[in-house]
Amino acid sequence: MEKIVVSKKILRVDDKGIHELDDPVIREVPLTIFLNGKELVTLLHTPERSEELAVGFLRSEGLIRRFADIRSLRFDQEQGIVFVETKGNELAEKLYGKRTITSGCGKGTVFYHALDALKSNPVKSEMTIPARQILALMRQLQERAELYQQTGGIHSSALGSKEGLLYVCEDIGRHNAVDKLIGHCLKEEIDLNEKVLLTSGRVSSEILIKTAKLSIPVLVSRSAPTELSIELAINLGITLIGFARGRRFNIYANQQRIQIN
Amino acid sequence: MEKIVVSKKILRVDDKGIHELDDPVIREVPLTIFLNGKELVTLLHTPERSEELAVGFLRSEGLIRRFADIRSLRFDQEQGIVFVETKGNELAEKLYGKRTITSGCGKGTVFYHALDALKSNPVKSEMTIPARQILALMRQLQERAELYQQTGGIHSSALGSKEGLLYVCEDIGRHNAVDKLIGHCLKEEIDLNEKVLLTSGRVSSEILIKTAKLSIPVLVSRSAPTELSIELAINLGITLIGFARGRRFNIYANQQRIQIN
Repeated sequence: MEKIVVSKKILRVDDKGIHELDDPVIREVPLTIFLNGKELVTLLHTPERSEELAVGFLRSEGLIRRFADIRSLRFDQEQGIVFVETKGNELAEKLYGKRTITSGCGKGTVFYHALDALKSNPVKSEMTIPARQILALMRQLQERAELYQQTGGIHSSALGSKEGLLYVCEDIGRHNAVDKLIGHCLKEEIDLNEKVLLTSGRVSSEILIKTAKLSIPVLVSRSAPTELSIELAINLGITLIGFARGRRFNIYANQQRIQIN
Repeated sequence: MEKIVVSKKILRVDDKGIHELDDPVIREVPLTIFLNGKELVTLLHTPERSEELAVGFLRSEGLIRRFADIRSLRFDQEQGIVFVETKGNELAEKLYGKRTITSGCGKGTVFYHALDALKSNPVKSEMTIPARQILALMRQLQERAELYQQTGGIHSSALGSKEGLLYVCEDIGRHNAVDKLIGHCLKEEIDLNEKVLLTSGRVSSEILIKTAKLSIPVLVSRSAPTELSIELAINLGITLIGFARGRRFNIYANQQRIQIN
């Protein structure tokens, strides 16, 4: 395992003057994905769950649909390269043309195409979840988001359900943290129809679209959604919750899935 | 001017139950850049200073070096397109091949190439600035970051000097906020040799590289830097400050420019 946090000698300046101390700092490491022998992209990531990040990235970009689309997957940690071979590579070749670079944290996607495809296929899950469980999941995410507590420089994402938190991922990138989670869900073939996706970060349209592509019915953020993500959530049938902190949250779309006690 | 904040009817859930209220939400709008007649990229941004964002993006990607490289610039607000014609387009064509997608908030850059080029040319500025002025600049940035105060969903960046804050930009994207500022500096031909770049966001390697490309000697963040950005700051001659909050901050690299009172 590579280290994900290192201790650095830094200078702290405060009312008492200046003094040296050791401070934990998060690592940021390039990860290059080769798809079917071609260099696809270099992501900068926290070196943990790198293969899952590669798988989740390919899914978010629409280059694979399920883990079974992958023929082989090899991670060369020393070089920082994930080599992926897919079963049919025409789809991958075709899709990786037009690119969108996102507002925030992130990645390119075929933005308008993705929207068109998704709008014809909104999320239909009839799951419901009590409001107090939403708050409990967010509290658990914060407790388990260990890197943040050490370094203050990290995003976390998690998969939850009525029963509790299932899996937590962390990364310096808001998008990477979600893509690692997506990669894990694909690998483990987790049914997402009654699940909740939690994120520490803001909800821009891209995070919303990632959620919709996986048909996850409920998206919960500690932070703010954009107007575009709210509109998309309404149209795509996703329950969108923001500012889930302490004992309260805001519902921005599809409140029918939230049971108020 | 397009609206950048809209009021949305939302549901607040808290100890008192559930109630409807009007909440300000930040807008997120696609902005497509056409370079020399070809569609280059679609960014998602807060619709304010869109032309400056386009100029700053082109600079950060290495597709232009100065504002004078641009022959014409036209913003079609209705379509959300900025049309840019450069004077010599071979450079732009050549450079826009290999892409890196970043950890965090962001954009592609020719990551390794950029690094190589920069390492041979570190920032040499002999400016110094008092520690209390760093804190004053950060306080002013927070006071002027109006959208954040309204919506909680925005990043801000600013240019400062010993004399005070010079220019503030806001965007849902951490990178966009910096690129808008860069676009402004290019347009106005501002000498950056004795300036400070302030950002509300985390400092990943990409933000550090943007700073280095413009030879800005001091970078101050309200948040955490990554290990890679610290290493780059040391090598590229940039004074890197993080966690500038209230009455204290951390110095991660090149402390010689900071005068302790």
